[in-house]
Amino acid sequence: MKLKRSERIVVMTEYLLNNPNKLIPLTYFVSKFNQAKSSISEDIHIIKNGFKEENIGEVKTLAGVSGGVIFTPTLVEEDAKEILSSFLDKINDGNRLLAGGYIFMSDIIGDPSLMNKLGRVVATVYKNKEVDAVVTVATKGIPVAYAIASILNKPVIIIRRDNKVTEGTTVAINYVSGSTKKIETMILSKRSLNTGSKVLLVDDFMRGGGVLTGMESLMNEFDVNVVGKVIITQCFDSPREHEDDYLYLSKIENIDEFNGTFDVKLGNVIEKLRQVEKEDVENE
Amino acid sequence: MKLKRSERIVVMTEYLLNNPNKLIPLTYFVSKFNQAKSSISEDIHIIKNGFKEENIGEVKTLAGVSGGVIFTPTLVEEDAKEILSSFLDKINDGNRLLAGGYIFMSDIIGDPSLMNKLGRVVATVYKNKEVDAVVTVATKGIPVAYAIASILNKPVIIIRRDNKVTEGTTVAINYVSGSTKKIETMILSKRSLNTGSKVLLVDDFMRGGGVLTGMESLMNEFDVNVVGKVIITQCFDSPREHEDDYLYLSKIENIDEFNGTFDVKLGNVIEKLRQVEKEDVENE
Repeated sequence: MKLKRSERIVVMTEYLLNNPNKLIPLTYFVSKFNQAKSSISEDIHIIKNGFKEENIGEVKTLAGVSGGVIFTPTLVEEDAKEILSSFLDKINDGNRLLAGGYIFMSDIIGDPSLMNKLGRVVATVYKNKEVDAVVTVATKGIPVAYAIASILNKPVIIIRRDNKVTEGTTVAINYVSGSTKKIETMILSKRSLNTGSKVLLVDDFMRGGGVLTGMESLMNEFDVNVVGKVIITQCFDSPREHEDDYLYLSKIENIDEFNGTFDVKLGNVIEKLRQVEKEDVENE
Repeated sequence: MKLKRSERIVVMTEYLLNNPNKLIPLTYFVSKFNQAKSSISEDIHIIKNGFKEENIGEVKTLAGVSGGVIFTPTLVEEDAKEILSSFLDKINDGNRLLAGGYIFMSDIIGDPSLMNKLGRVVATVYKNKEVDAVVTVATKGIPVAYAIASILNKPVIIIRRDNKVTEGTTVAINYVSGSTKKIETMILSKRSLNTGSKVLLVDDFMRGGGVLTGMESLMNEFDVNVVGKVIITQCFDSPREHEDDYLYLSKIENIDEFNGTFDVKLGNVIEKLRQVEKEDVENE
């Protein structure tokens, strides 16, 4: 294939965007486009500048035999704030308060574009944690877990509440639901996770905190390291808010069932993003 | 912001890729880059050529006041075959046969990169169907449903098996499982779908066909039009194979529980892709 330089840059941009956090040998592009390594390096330099100017992410080139180019999608505080504010606006919009003080979120969770954006925010916070797998629990944590995992280019592991024959041998734990005080079960296929893996836990909603505690107990059974915990929407206060590896994107307070009102606030995500940025500066 | 032309093309390429199937007014780029409309049009032409050469998708420009540019990710038969063959290889790889003739698929479903690729194959088949929503049933259909919906830029609606307080008022139907002959329930929040919407049904696995029939009954209750049905892996033969709007990506046959073997075949996906391509040629 012989493309014009500008067309080649379009194609390379697409390839990097669809293969994030993956080392791509320069020879891949060299043979694909039948170009000298120096031209490919220049192309990558242009892409790097474009991505940098627009805060799309980091393009790193590694020299040597095992070298190549690796693209890490990230975002800056300003873009994160814009995404999060449109997320909060959506929560504020419409009649979401259900009986028992629950909030209807299915339409928000069902918006792939928003989930992908929130995923990019979360992936930026955990970009240096060398996550091996994103672990979530069925059902509503799954969309954002995939959005995060797509960017980190790592597998998603789904914990189930029911034992399905399609899982093979499983490990099950019981936990007490923080809000209903009932005993619940979590089940995960035995072959899902390798010992010592670094995992990121993701769930959509936290009320009593029982689900997250349950996930942590289950992870203990698998002998993996939990490098982070992510909650999309948290209700009320939680003692977990002071945990260093715990991220929540939004918080719902002052639920008034009688008047059908509640307040939505931003979680601790901006502060977490600043922490990562600071670490990056220190490591430079 | 004032970027070099090549850097501008990088940024525009990223924007189009992250906003598929959405009309973007040229004025967006004009004011973003502070450039003349003619320069932006030339940039788009370059991106269009790059995408065309590499079969990344179609870039259409619409003239007039409500005009702009719209990017539809698609793929060609050759690329679809490559994706599907790596998918079949994965199914063939390892010890997947479980008791009862079930196949372990969680690790395949858990691979976001593969799910995104399969999503692109499916989205190409349904690109002209004006899908309003992708409907799936918890749990394992969710990943590929999001991959499809991300490309179509439409919401995902998740049918549940259990009634959760977080869904508000729901509509429930009962159906008979084709494989276990037990009566099962499907539940969907009443506010999930608008009457007359065009929906694409997605599920991961089909054995007896009861789930898909159940989904169709539930869709009847919502008065929507089912414009397509997608199954990732089908077991044995199904009378549905001859339905025109039914797509299956893979098929498992000759399960031998005693020896732990089975055969995997490609579904009817290539034939469906050819059908769409033929329609496109006719409509040109």
